Amino acid sequence: MRLAEAVVTIVGMGLMGGSLGMALVKGHACKEVRALTRRPSNAEEIVKAKAAHKAGTNPELLLSDADLVVFAAPVRTIQRQIWALHAFMKPGAVVTEMGSTKGGIVGAFDRLPAEISAVGGHPMCGKEVSGLAAADPDLFQNKVWALTPSAKSTAAAFRLVEEMVLAVGAIPMSMSPDRHDRAVACISHLVYLMATVLVAVAEDTANDLPEVWQLAASGFRDSTRVAAGNIVMMMDILATNRENVLEMLGKARRQMTVLSRLLEEEDESGLLELLTPLRHRRLGMFPLDLAAEKAVIPNAP
Amino acid sequence: MRLAEAVVTIVGMGLMGGSLGMALVKGHACKEVRALTRRPSNAEEIVKAKAAHKAGTNPELLLSDADLVVFAAPVRTIQRQIWALHAFMKPGAVVTEMGSTKGGIVGAFDRLPAEISAVGGHPMCGKEVSGLAAADPDLFQNKVWALTPSAKSTAAAFRLVEEMVLAVGAIPMSMSPDRHDRAVACISHLVYLMATVLVAVAEDTANDLPEVWQLAASGFRDSTRVAAGNIVMMMDILATNRENVLEMLGKARRQMTVLSRLLEEEDESGLLELLTPLRHRRLGMFPLDLAAEKAVIPNAP
Repeated sequence: MRLAEAVVTIVGMGLMGGSLGMALVKGHACKEVRALTRRPSNAEEIVKAKAAHKAGTNPELLLSDADLVVFAAPVRTIQRQIWALHAFMKPGAVVTEMGSTKGGIVGAFDRLPAEISAVGGHPMCGKEVSGLAAADPDLFQNKVWALTPSAKSTAAAFRLVEEMVLAVGAIPMSMSPDRHDRAVACISHLVYLMATVLVAVAEDTANDLPEVWQLAASGFRDSTRVAAGNIVMMMDILATNRENVLEMLGKARRQMTVLSRLLEEEDESGLLELLTPLRHRRLGMFPLDLAAEKAVIPNAP
Repeated sequence: MRLAEAVVTIVGMGLMGGSLGMALVKGHACKEVRALTRRPSNAEEIVKAKAAHKAGTNPELLLSDADLVVFAAPVRTIQRQIWALHAFMKPGAVVTEMGSTKGGIVGAFDRLPAEISAVGGHPMCGKEVSGLAAADPDLFQNKVWALTPSAKSTAAAFRLVEEMVLAVGAIPMSMSPDRHDRAVACISHLVYLMATVLVAVAEDTANDLPEVWQLAASGFRDSTRVAAGNIVMMMDILATNRENVLEMLGKARRQMTVLSRLLEEEDESGLLELLTPLRHRRLGMFPLDLAAEKAVIPNAP
């Protein structure tokens, strides 16, 4: 099956599901985009926002002839929905999802009937605001979209999901569910926890030094942005990726012990030796920063 | 003395000094803007960039009739420059500076001759790139500019420096040098160290999981931006604000211990109780985020 001939039903019309629907509608990428939503009052708004051609609350109507079903919600909601809704799907349907962690999703996939195949997915983008009002058809443009094939992923299912990812402008990247979960524990979940730590330290310091809130500038703002993210999503992430997150927290705590010791010992050359390569690593990660850096005239005098 | 009649000499034409010069020139804020730079080859570029009316390397020519002298460099460079250059200044001259910490600066001020007065200052803005090429006359618009009066600050000196801050569009905020240093340890220096920790953990994890670099998205990018900052400036900050930074690192480490314990114990309600108010604190800090949050339609279904 090609995407152009497929009926695609998105279950969950928040930031991610809404953006996917908008991108598919805008790109005329499939035969029909449908949205399954929980509240009847949302259906009209979803169609008006061009996030789906058809929207409603009836799973039988919206799922029974869907070729591709995309779950877009916090991870544990997806797990429950897969279990609650798979009986409405037709044999041969392909399931994918946009959850933040994969360990628990693979388990949910494994309980699907044999005639339904499934491929995990995770677009590496987001905003600190959630909901359809924040949805954007260009959200996925040039963003990496991890695909995590497992025992339930047939080659045909993988191709269909990959085609959808490409159709919305994202870059598919295939990896095992385990490697995905460990990588995002590092570059996403630890980042969230560290952002909450910064807010907590500022809050505590503000008790006797309210100036901290006035002095907080763009550095603090950018570094704590993710602390404002959807809390239900984050709780699901921490619960379903606990061991990997604990591993990364442990690494961060050890690194902070090293920093504290170097500062306590006033070991300036040790600090310089530790921090200089990290600075270059960060500059090298994002080529635009590097270009700006190269244009610099040394501080004077 | 009013700013409009003052000759202002900026010592150091990096991001901060260059931006200040550009803002003063653009706003016709003073009688003349001069730049004292270390390298003769920079002088032409400075005048061409409209960062000063006159630029050069000769302190006698550029400082002897300056009414206001602004030092803009990493903190320990400012300390050395104040000592090396004050003999060129006229009696009645006012000194200010744009350094990141104040403890050591106050000590340098105290050694100035009696007829020179001084007021510490620190604009709360920056970029992860440095140098005149990154300078921007609008850098200070609507940004807080801390002013840190000390024993060397006469009322007249304070008024002149405050007038300069207002002239470039910034919001002056007066506080003691001690309170300034403790507050920036929290909302700036700790933020920098935590950003380097995130890069270090990613670097370490990438050894056996190179996917981390491909999956790093906007959250990681924003949260680690300051890790790419000027290393000389950061080393001066850590050396001159060591005890406050150690205090904040200690608070962060304790908070991370709490997070690790809650995760280890799978205490989900404890995590929710800890993280929810931090999320609201972060949302409340930046009203635009809050407005976006309020516009949200709950996740569905």
